[in-house]
Amino acid sequence: MTKLFSLLLVISFLSLFSSAATSSSSRPPPKFLGSAFARSKPNRNSPPPYRYETRYFRQNLDHFSFAPLPQFTQRYLVGSSDKWSRNGPIFFYCGNEGDIDWFAANTGFVWEIAPKFSALVIFAEHRYYGESMPYGSQERAYKDAKSMSYFTTEQALADFTVLLTDLKQNLSSEESPVVLFGGSYAGMLAAWMRLKYPHVAIGALASSAPILQFEDIVPPETFYDIVSNDFRRESLSCFEAIKKSWDALDRLGKVHDGLTSLSRKFRLCHKLNNTQQLSDWLSSAYSYLAMVNYPFPSGFMMPLPAYPIKEVCKRIDNDPNGNDLLDRIFAGASIYYNYTGNVSCFDLDDDPHGLSGWDWQACTEMVMPMSSSRENSMFQPYDFDYTAYKEQCVQSYNVTPRPRWMTTEFGGHQV
Amino acid sequence: MTKLFSLLLVISFLSLFSSAATSSSSRPPPKFLGSAFARSKPNRNSPPPYRYETRYFRQNLDHFSFAPLPQFTQRYLVGSSDKWSRNGPIFFYCGNEGDIDWFAANTGFVWEIAPKFSALVIFAEHRYYGESMPYGSQERAYKDAKSMSYFTTEQALADFTVLLTDLKQNLSSEESPVVLFGGSYAGMLAAWMRLKYPHVAIGALASSAPILQFEDIVPPETFYDIVSNDFRRESLSCFEAIKKSWDALDRLGKVHDGLTSLSRKFRLCHKLNNTQQLSDWLSSAYSYLAMVNYPFPSGFMMPLPAYPIKEVCKRIDNDPNGNDLLDRIFAGASIYYNYTGNVSCFDLDDDPHGLSGWDWQACTEMVMPMSSSRENSMFQPYDFDYTAYKEQCVQSYNVTPRPRWMTTEFGGHQV
Repeated sequence: MTKLFSLLLVISFLSLFSSAATSSSSRPPPKFLGSAFARSKPNRNSPPPYRYETRYFRQNLDHFSFAPLPQFTQRYLVGSSDKWSRNGPIFFYCGNEGDIDWFAANTGFVWEIAPKFSALVIFAEHRYYGESMPYGSQERAYKDAKSMSYFTTEQALADFTVLLTDLKQNLSSEESPVVLFGGSYAGMLAAWMRLKYPHVAIGALASSAPILQFEDIVPPETFYDIVSNDFRRESLSCFEAIKKSWDALDRLGKVHDGLTSLSRKFRLCHKLNNTQQLSDWLSSAYSYLAMVNYPFPSGFMMPLPAYPIKEVCKRIDNDPNGNDLLDRIFAGASIYYNYTGNVSCFDLDDDPHGLSGWDWQACTEMVMPMSSSRENSMFQPYDFDYTAYKEQCVQSYNVTPRPRWMTTEFGGHQV
Repeated sequence: MTKLFSLLLVISFLSLFSSAATSSSSRPPPKFLGSAFARSKPNRNSPPPYRYETRYFRQNLDHFSFAPLPQFTQRYLVGSSDKWSRNGPIFFYCGNEGDIDWFAANTGFVWEIAPKFSALVIFAEHRYYGESMPYGSQERAYKDAKSMSYFTTEQALADFTVLLTDLKQNLSSEESPVVLFGGSYAGMLAAWMRLKYPHVAIGALASSAPILQFEDIVPPETFYDIVSNDFRRESLSCFEAIKKSWDALDRLGKVHDGLTSLSRKFRLCHKLNNTQQLSDWLSSAYSYLAMVNYPFPSGFMMPLPAYPIKEVCKRIDNDPNGNDLLDRIFAGASIYYNYTGNVSCFDLDDDPHGLSGWDWQACTEMVMPMSSSRENSMFQPYDFDYTAYKEQCVQSYNVTPRPRWMTTEFGGHQV
């Protein structure tokens, strides 16, 4: 488990504003790439690195009411049980906002330690993601606010608990100690599940789980300050170059044929409509780079070298007097978007702002206020605006967020 | 707080079977009186014994989904705050299955200790009871399985938590320590709320709260064994007389004009259709007597003397050789049903098996298996039959119970 997962979701929920933001003059949050997260598939050409069986379980769509609703099928993965014996430990991974096989393939830690504990490994998919779609298909599940309404964290936790309880009974393994695992949103789920269902798990390893990123518990600048700091500690000049680049982009965008030359400079497949599109695309790269800044080569979000931020900053810092700032920015971003060198042009709309799952969650329960400060952040300054956020949710989903619900349900404020 | 509340609910949930049972040859559970509990009003002629204000709070009908649903108004009572100061303790009573003002009037313990702690007293009504009706009226709230579907324990706990969180914010009293209170079903709620929402309460006084009366956690005979034992320890001959009386009733019911003479003997307003109706009526009295066997005169369920079981047994034991068994049984039951002596005839259908709230809860989540043993119980032998129970629920409400849900959600099995 690494800090990888932790922040993916934090970017995702800003996505709602991408479209709204481009039409406003205030600096918008970074472009949304989070939906790639939910849609991304493991590379089918390479075999999965860990052995498991895929199984399915019937779940009630609403655990907390008795409305006449269809059940749905939850997918879950069961690791090899060669070394496991009855009432032996169970390691239960609480699925995040995406295909569970992708998370299984990228959560080596759980697989690596399981044999040492002779533990049975379970990866359970989160409802409304991957194959675990109510109403039989993503299209029908994501149809409208009514069909999506059971797409909540509490329902997902109940799914996990019902599945786990049933599994243990079927395995005649009621006394198995269970440890929950999760990173990022799944880490939040693991922590909350341990809190809400203490009778089903003896512990939880909640990695990179921003359970305090609600209301006013942590300052809203926290996330972008951390990302910015990852760049600053690598290179102050790199941090400052990025911080200056937003104005440079805007200035170039405003001159005659500026958008054309920007589009050429950044090798875009289609001509830019505005500079904000490009700023969002770059901001996303920086945020994801901070999340996947592993000390070894990796390929979770994108194929990347070890210490990718160091590599990005090397290019941005390269001969600042001889090279144009935006050329260096492009060279840096290419580490993230084109490390293999196979991309001939970049499609900023590669990831349309569709009805992705996390957007719904951000518009209902997962209201995590995030701002970007003028002082400590290298990103464009931005103040979280709940009114605008809410309006966008009503417009997108016809749903009103409950910004205080998560702390009411799960706590978080010091008492 | 006494053991009063504890068992009322346990009887209530047997009500479903009353109608089914009368047509079956197997011994049915006792007649339902629990709906009286939900409908009962405090005596409006006497002023409430404790000072409070009645207030109302808007709640979401479904806390765990975002379906477009109307909000509803929850009633709650706020005790005098003369002695309370900001951030002082709050005593929060989790409302049971009935009018909250009735519980407030009958929960002296909370009111009596509050001044000693300078605590603010809150009594919150449970959704779908009293005035806290979704859809504006009981008739509309209880219309069908769809309108009742949000009538669950988890939703009620969330109501309490949302109300409490909002109250504390409005009172600028976020640091107030909160202690939860409840007896019987409300005791279960208090215990579960402390478990599920540890961040909102520092403790719970859960009185007579049968949170283990689910699945196979306790033997299903537990309740009737305890009630029977309350009679046996008062008088073995009383216990044995009651145990023998069921057959005597049946025998008399079967002879020519037997139902007529039984109806006369028990001063019934309407002629009996079968002896089971009468057995149920008697069984309910014994169960309630065990619940309200206070050492002082009381009037919670019925006007009763101190130690009412002792009084009942005195009459049942009275001159067993000179007096007919069933006459003595009637004399005993009259302590419960007619202590004031004002009732001229008894109406067994006084309490029709309508769509009372607890029935719904028993048919959805609150599946509490109860049997009456041949050996230790003075009641008619009865084995809990889940299949029949479920069928009755489908027939009554078009809903299928989830008999394993409560232990999944709240635990209870030893782990």
